[in-house]
Amino acid sequence: MNIGFIGVGSMGAVMVRRLLAAGHTVRVWNRNAERARPLAEQGAIIVGSVREAFNGDAVFSVLADDVAARAVLLDSGVLDSVPDDVVHVNMATISVELAAELARCHADRGVAYVAAPVLGRPDVAEAGKLNIVAAGPGAAIDRVQPLLDVLGQKTWRIGEAPEHANVYKLAANFMLACAIETFGEAAALVSGHGSDAALFHELITSSILPGPVYQGYGKMITEGRYEPALFKARLGLKDVRLALAAGEAVNTPLPMGSVVRDSLIEAVAHGDGDKDLAALGKVAQRRAGRKV
Amino acid sequence: MNIGFIGVGSMGAVMVRRLLAAGHTVRVWNRNAERARPLAEQGAIIVGSVREAFNGDAVFSVLADDVAARAVLLDSGVLDSVPDDVVHVNMATISVELAAELARCHADRGVAYVAAPVLGRPDVAEAGKLNIVAAGPGAAIDRVQPLLDVLGQKTWRIGEAPEHANVYKLAANFMLACAIETFGEAAALVSGHGSDAALFHELITSSILPGPVYQGYGKMITEGRYEPALFKARLGLKDVRLALAAGEAVNTPLPMGSVVRDSLIEAVAHGDGDKDLAALGKVAQRRAGRKV
Amino acid sequence: MNIGFIGVGSMGAVMVRRLLAAGHTVRVWNRNAERARPLAEQGAIIVGSVREAFNGDAVFSVLADDVAARAVLLDSGVLDSVPDDVVHVNMATISVELAAELARCHADRGVAYVAAPVLGRPDVAEAGKLNIVAAGPGAAIDRVQPLLDVLGQKTWRIGEAPEHANVYKLAANFMLACAIETFGEAAALVSGHGSDAALFHELITSSILPGPVYQGYGKMITEGRYEPALFKARLGLKDVRLALAAGEAVNTPLPMGSVVRDSLIEAVAHGDGDKDLAALGKVAQRRAGRKV
Amino acid sequence: MNIGFIGVGSMGAVMVRRLLAAGHTVRVWNRNAERARPLAEQGAIIVGSVREAFNGDAVFSVLADDVAARAVLLDSGVLDSVPDDVVHVNMATISVELAAELARCHADRGVAYVAAPVLGRPDVAEAGKLNIVAAGPGAAIDRVQPLLDVLGQKTWRIGEAPEHANVYKLAANFMLACAIETFGEAAALVSGHGSDAALFHELITSSILPGPVYQGYGKMITEGRYEPALFKARLGLKDVRLALAAGEAVNTPLPMGSVVRDSLIEAVAHGDGDKDLAALGKVAQRRAGRKV
Repeated sequence: MNIGFIGVGSMGAVMVRRLLAAGHTVRVWNRNAERARPLAEQGAIIVGSVREAFNGDAVFSVLADDVAARAVLLDSGVLDSVPDDVVHVNMATISVELAAELARCHADRGVAYVAAPVLGRPDVAEAGKLNIVAAGPGAAIDRVQPLLDVLGQKTWRIGEAPEHANVYKLAANFMLACAIETFGEAAALVSGHGSDAALFHELITSSILPGPVYQGYGKMITEGRYEPALFKARLGLKDVRLALAAGEAVNTPLPMGSVVRDSLIEAVAHGDGDKDLAALGKVAQRRAGRKV
Repeated sequence: MNIGFIGVGSMGAVMVRRLLAAGHTVRVWNRNAERARPLAEQGAIIVGSVREAFNGDAVFSVLADDVAARAVLLDSGVLDSVPDDVVHVNMATISVELAAELARCHADRGVAYVAAPVLGRPDVAEAGKLNIVAAGPGAAIDRVQPLLDVLGQKTWRIGEAPEHANVYKLAANFMLACAIETFGEAAALVSGHGSDAALFHELITSSILPGPVYQGYGKMITEGRYEPALFKARLGLKDVRLALAAGEAVNTPLPMGSVVRDSLIEAVAHGDGDKDLAALGKVAQRRAGRKV
Repeated sequence: MNIGFIGVGSMGAVMVRRLLAAGHTVRVWNRNAERARPLAEQGAIIVGSVREAFNGDAVFSVLADDVAARAVLLDSGVLDSVPDDVVHVNMATISVELAAELARCHADRGVAYVAAPVLGRPDVAEAGKLNIVAAGPGAAIDRVQPLLDVLGQKTWRIGEAPEHANVYKLAANFMLACAIETFGEAAALVSGHGSDAALFHELITSSILPGPVYQGYGKMITEGRYEPALFKARLGLKDVRLALAAGEAVNTPLPMGSVVRDSLIEAVAHGDGDKDLAALGKVAQRRAGRKV
Repeated sequence: MNIGFIGVGSMGAVMVRRLLAAGHTVRVWNRNAERARPLAEQGAIIVGSVREAFNGDAVFSVLADDVAARAVLLDSGVLDSVPDDVVHVNMATISVELAAELARCHADRGVAYVAAPVLGRPDVAEAGKLNIVAAGPGAAIDRVQPLLDVLGQKTWRIGEAPEHANVYKLAANFMLACAIETFGEAAALVSGHGSDAALFHELITSSILPGPVYQGYGKMITEGRYEPALFKARLGLKDVRLALAAGEAVNTPLPMGSVVRDSLIEAVAHGDGDKDLAALGKVAQRRAGRKV
């Protein structure tokens, strides 16, 4: 198919490569054109404007945050001149509020819009193991399903309201951050008693709490290793903040999220914003007065 | 082997049956003798005093809490007349403080003492799938290892200090309670937006947070089903309280635990103390002003 | 003096009346012109545009929130044509972020800008007892000082950076909300034991914690009376949210604020957003399972 | 009157001096007799046993904590041989649970028992400015009222159930600790923005939050001065822990208390347990990544 792709940060770049490898034509736009260059070598067509990306069969956008998404997708006016039949698939992790606004703006202009954030980091994307959470008109999702099948191992269709996919994504990242904070505290408790946090980690992930989150981030915590950052603390803070706002929008307090937000601010305050989210483990140790 | 068994609540009773089925002789003492009766029909020998239980090759104790453990094991004076060569295996979830005191008292009297709390509920025990966390003198554990092999699928030997096993157990239950609270909040967030918490549950447990805790308790939450209680909220509160105390003992704050403690008190305040720990999901819904 | 006044909600209206009573000429603009009508009867001149208000010796603005302030002061373009020598005194409780942006925009256009939020509700303003927190260029504050003296009992000059006045204001309201939440919890504790929360209130406000906040809001809590709302829970939530954001902007977690935010969301969820901030006392009682 | 006095730490010693100065006979017992010596020089009679203190018209006890109170008042057996007509006035800050047990034990033995904890530190006692919270049989309080009038400026009679006085005391200290934590966070917010926390302190204590707590502890925080400790962080932690337990006993969560407990544990973890409770201000600064 003929695909536009907007935003080729670490996640977007992996996706473009997978689409190219599957034989699709991919026109790429990135704010910083330099970052798109290596993809040209792999067959992508670099275009000079968002408008040029916004046509063909489908256009994907993977922008960093609300500010970038608003600037590129709304303030640019690009939606005013989208050809018929393009499906816009927005995979970014953005606020539920902006997600709903984008859904409305697309509907107003008759542009098919699918929100499709993913669970998994770039390394998971590389391996084709992403879970994609897709919401939007069924017919639109049908048309891009072959492309989603290239990008992820499974597409979860969760309904017609695009912003619900963003709620799912934020709820998932909220849970992820809470799980890491919880393990960080447990590890501080165990090591504070002079016992072995690594063995505790093995026990817990072999029994009641298996899976990649406790295993991966937990191991970083027990090893006191917070780089390279697979998921930066600063971005985790952003997601938790968005989850709390999504909660407030429907009068739902998330007290665990409040604690994690405070811990992440503390991590950033101590210079660990660009370290991995696992740096929550350092916060727990520091609170307990231990060297970190 | 010739085994004494003290305390046959729901967990202890399962264990006695497994030991009997494996061909061992089991002398059972229970404060409420009535509860031990059914085990007699399966071959257990009911004895009339703790002292009669406290001999043979090994004695297991599975008492409900600190108060019961202190009364039966310390205040009774039973430790003053234990025959040589008995290994006492204490499987109860008790405070780290009492665990350390018990370790000292046994050592003072030359009684071999192993702390061996388990991860898993009676249904897991029934299936022989418990993880046993054992700490104490290696030789003592060696002697009871064949019995532990009957009771669980794996024994984790975590060192010589018995109380460390209790730290592990409390840290594990702290993590479990935090995981349930977190899921309860996430489900309230998702359903608050009019989306499907059950589908979210399926997504999350199929991807980043698999395993029995999120699956089992999470399902109860999405179904709004809190009975029968496999793990009572009241007991979860007790364990979180003990974990917080274990943290304070080594100057380690556990802010996630503080939140869960408050939520569990709220659950008890609303009459759900004897419902399942999954009732944390009700607390999250109630806070959001929804009918529960 | 010749004064423009933008925004005559309950606080603004009181201020206009005091300025008129002191013999000043006051030109009033309000989005909803109807609300300004009664002031005309007292001598105010109603004007039809923000621009007409933005001249003379000084212009005061008392807008409800960031959205209103941004629309009226920035998006309207009014700052592009302000006559020389007008001092703009912004008394609204707005975010520190917007406060800093407003300061920059005024500076860029050479308009004298003073941030001057107040401590005290309309009833305090009526009595001339407000504390005014003023920040901005000293010469600009000097020029409006006679007017500030009409509006409050004391002007606290806290420096040249206007946004610092907003930090003070948010920090003060953060403390106020925390004080009320704290008293609500204490009252729930005391009454939970069957003792008299009103007597406890008298004790505490006669001894270690005197002053209008504990006295006023505390009394509403012990009487279970949450109307009329002198300070709405919804607006308290807004201020706490802005305080948390101001904290995050300088990497400062405010965990007490996180708790209060969650409690206020819970109050709103239960239909008490338009009741007084004292409704935090209901939240504390509800958590404890008591009828509210 | 002829008075026994048990426990002459810093608070007890001040009280004994005031009673002596008022012309009463005071027989003093202290676990560490050495500490009582200086009082002998001022006219007190040092006695060698609790029993010798427990007679005359009234006996006061001011013991450090539950452990000391239990040992001296219950485990010693002293209550078994108290002469008729002695009124025991217990002024210690103890748990509500122990307070209720003491009330029962005194009632069982027909000993008149009054719980009378005080609001105020030794310096306040020295100035005769204590507020005394008294609960117990009215006739018993009547008999000791002249003595209470010597010790404090006002006696608050709050009912017949002695433990209610302890609830009041814990609720008051809970509020005190929350107020200090709150100010510490606010000061970190203000100074984080480069503004002046001392001026903010002056503003707040001159307006909405006056009184000795915000003034005294707040000043220590803005000055970064945590010694000498007028109220040790370690003792504040004890009181907050007792307040949380008193809440749990009646199913009342105190989430602000949970936050303060965690902050106080963090203070102790960083070696500030024997510094003043104002060290909560250091915790807030440390979280924000600032040198403390």
